[in-house]
Amino acid sequence: MAKDYSYEIEIKVRDYECDAQGIVNNANYQHYFEHARHEFLEHAGCSFGAMREAGIEPVVARIEINYKNSLRGGELFVCKLFMRREGIRFVFYQDIFRKSDGVLCAEAKVTTVCTREGKIIKGDELVEMLGEYISE
Amino acid sequence: MAKDYSYEIEIKVRDYECDAQGIVNNANYQHYFEHARHEFLEHAGCSFGAMREAGIEPVVARIEINYKNSLRGGELFVCKLFMRREGIRFVFYQDIFRKSDGVLCAEAKVTTVCTREGKIIKGDELVEMLGEYISE
Amino acid sequence: MAKDYSYEIEIKVRDYECDAQGIVNNANYQHYFEHARHEFLEHAGCSFGAMREAGIEPVVARIEINYKNSLRGGELFVCKLFMRREGIRFVFYQDIFRKSDGVLCAEAKVTTVCTREGKIIKGDELVEMLGEYISE
Amino acid sequence: MAKDYSYEIEIKVRDYECDAQGIVNNANYQHYFEHARHEFLEHAGCSFGAMREAGIEPVVARIEINYKNSLRGGELFVCKLFMRREGIRFVFYQDIFRKSDGVLCAEAKVTTVCTREGKIIKGDELVEMLGEYISE
Repeated sequence: MAKDYSYEIEIKVRDYECDAQGIVNNANYQHYFEHARHEFLEHAGCSFGAMREAGIEPVVARIEINYKNSLRGGELFVCKLFMRREGIRFVFYQDIFRKSDGVLCAEAKVTTVCTREGKIIKGDELVEMLGEYISE
Repeated sequence: MAKDYSYEIEIKVRDYECDAQGIVNNANYQHYFEHARHEFLEHAGCSFGAMREAGIEPVVARIEINYKNSLRGGELFVCKLFMRREGIRFVFYQDIFRKSDGVLCAEAKVTTVCTREGKIIKGDELVEMLGEYISE
Repeated sequence: MAKDYSYEIEIKVRDYECDAQGIVNNANYQHYFEHARHEFLEHAGCSFGAMREAGIEPVVARIEINYKNSLRGGELFVCKLFMRREGIRFVFYQDIFRKSDGVLCAEAKVTTVCTREGKIIKGDELVEMLGEYISE
Repeated sequence: MAKDYSYEIEIKVRDYECDAQGIVNNANYQHYFEHARHEFLEHAGCSFGAMREAGIEPVVARIEINYKNSLRGGELFVCKLFMRREGIRFVFYQDIFRKSDGVLCAEAKVTTVCTREGKIIKGDELVEMLGEYISE
């Protein structure tokens, strides 16, 4: 069953992101996922900077990543995502597919919350800003 | 209830590991956790290199991280861990505590499996190598 | 006087590449320069992997970087380069310009040599592979 | 002729700092050098944070690194340095030696200047703060 993604970005693996095993180091997928989220938010007219200016500081509370297949230096991949509000949480579902054959390489569930001056808030402002980009 | 850790390592945050928010970037915790696991394995007489030479390639299948409190540049922290065999999985339970006040900053559950020539194996050799270091 | 660049690539700063000062950490420019070199070599039909298969291991012997202006999260920049053979050295001249206003942010001179089994070689094979891409 | 270093720090290579060639990626030496400078400044009672609070923002204007020998995963190395004032510049001379055999792996000359609100200043405050730690 195809997921209903609301954003995708194509990225190319940089050689320095690979480790001695010749594959992308696990932690770098988290960098890819973060970069894709920030690009998505900017695309949705709600840049990370804009949120900060609005006094909203989104923070990652939990991350889960399943590693399925390894990416290698120079390979192209697509990071697809959609985001859902679950109570006070804003949850990103993100998948990374190798472009050459569409194989799923990694899938992540990233749970974020909005904070203001260190306190967790409901983040209604974010819902307004993101509107259609928040999946049911 | 205190967990029964079998290894701990003290690490100091490097300034370049912090992002524009002035705190350690989320992905860098994964680097800390990985480094702690490799140091633990070396300490247990079962270095990453040794395993490779034995034809065993441990791979991370899944990682879960809960982010509790942020670390800042120059802060000292302790990464404590224990490891358990769960079926064919070798699961690392790792916690990061800020040294100055003992506050829990991040906790991870890292699920790994052993592979040989790309195929998942039971990893009995690893059990022999690690012996006492594998918690019940 | 405009330099006669033989390759350029556009890259966008990723937020995690910035440090607590809110600007791209100095070391990351070296990552950008390396990535641009590898992309250039691939573009020139002489990928890093291809060289390795040919038994040629290019290594960086020296790097000089002048930092002129800082890049910030989300900014687009263009890395332009040309390469020259100077004796047994293959020297890359690389400049990074912010895209929005064309300001020079960093300029690098990267001196590399070719090695085979750890010994420095003249690298004539590389000259053949790169041909027109090597500036006089 | 032995240089008159004023500070040294021992660091262990982390596996994720190595690239597909199985050696520490060139850019990571810059991270090591930066970390050593910050540790030195903190040791000298002049932490990076303290300078910022004093309104002084040290910035790297130029870096030169000669790569001599490669470090591998798990290896211990020592980064030794001394610093000299050259006009309005504060120049760090830093060398990295592999601990096991004392072999020189990389040497850097890092030229920094002090700025206040974006303008370059002479940095006399820094001289006062560092005193004996500034070599003639």
